[in-house]
Amino acid sequence: MWVQRELRLRPRPRGFHLVTDEVLAGMPELRELRVGLAHLFLRHTSASLTLNENASPDVRRDFASWFDEAVPEDAPYWTHTIEGPDDMPAHIMASLLGPALTLPVRDGRLALGMWQGVYLCEHRESGGPRSLLMTVYGE
Amino acid sequence: MWVQRELRLRPRPRGFHLVTDEVLAGMPELRELRVGLAHLFLRHTSASLTLNENASPDVRRDFASWFDEAVPEDAPYWTHTIEGPDDMPAHIMASLLGPALTLPVRDGRLALGMWQGVYLCEHRESGGPRSLLMTVYGE
Amino acid sequence: MWVQRELRLRPRPRGFHLVTDEVLAGMPELRELRVGLAHLFLRHTSASLTLNENASPDVRRDFASWFDEAVPEDAPYWTHTIEGPDDMPAHIMASLLGPALTLPVRDGRLALGMWQGVYLCEHRESGGPRSLLMTVYGE
Repeated sequence: MWVQRELRLRPRPRGFHLVTDEVLAGMPELRELRVGLAHLFLRHTSASLTLNENASPDVRRDFASWFDEAVPEDAPYWTHTIEGPDDMPAHIMASLLGPALTLPVRDGRLALGMWQGVYLCEHRESGGPRSLLMTVYGE
Repeated sequence: MWVQRELRLRPRPRGFHLVTDEVLAGMPELRELRVGLAHLFLRHTSASLTLNENASPDVRRDFASWFDEAVPEDAPYWTHTIEGPDDMPAHIMASLLGPALTLPVRDGRLALGMWQGVYLCEHRESGGPRSLLMTVYGE
Repeated sequence: MWVQRELRLRPRPRGFHLVTDEVLAGMPELRELRVGLAHLFLRHTSASLTLNENASPDVRRDFASWFDEAVPEDAPYWTHTIEGPDDMPAHIMASLLGPALTLPVRDGRLALGMWQGVYLCEHRESGGPRSLLMTVYGE
């Protein structure tokens, strides 16, 4: 079975956002798979996806703090500054975390660990809506 | 062909550990594939998987040094500190490296480069056993 | 449908290089897929793949600047120095970005976002040719 579907994620502020439920709701065909995989793919270069702790908002806030410190807006070496100070750091962060996740499916459900949730990582101040292309396959 | 199997990795100390042989031993069905992929997925948010140099223990030690420097335990901005000083850095490191690898299979073997080995990256002091869900598929 | 093919990427200088067209030309079978995925896998531990902005060379230059700053050659903690000062940073950078990409295919084409291009990230001064194993599958 192969199903592909595009999901439009509403605009979110810069930061790390838990979107597991939204992703699951967007792919009801998961329930028909005994074993398979779900590929989530963000069609952008200044936002990313990652899996991390799904309970405490502190964790997501600390993600923002670390990334803002590690990839500073005011670094002297940026040359691509035409789209604003948050643009080049957003490109770097997007590649560090990556635009895609491949998640295992078992008995009609994502086989995530107890604490794993899907983060949409919005690296721009005003990134707008984000397009997520989901491909689910298996048997 | 779709096969999915869970492997329990024994507890390891904080650091980077070569587990290629253990992973291969856990998935004998690889040998039946002419062409396919193996998806390895760690069901945790404070450990990760990566591919890197499979020969020198120096490389794995230097990985630990760089990550400990880049994601310091004593950073002033951490707010999620309730689970110990190694917890929040572990979450960040886990997302930088990621919980999953998708590896090519050819003629019944992983088609890795000569120097590529699978690292289990244990980011906690006492992370305990780790659950690895493997999904092998192809023809 | 499963197709696997190895592509040899010519030697490139240290830096970030756009290789989308080369990758596409190397996998004509993409055109036969209605829905599927393309897995790109670099068989090396000192080069990597990422997706990022496909228009401005400034962006790729700034990638180099950030990575050189974040993973310095002269860090005092490197112990694996036998293969030159660019070797250990190359291993770290390779794992931060990762050796693989899984890209969605739709109606015979890669379903990338408008600004997404495939970067070959060469982390060594003289990395030589690089082997890219591509696996395309779907229906």
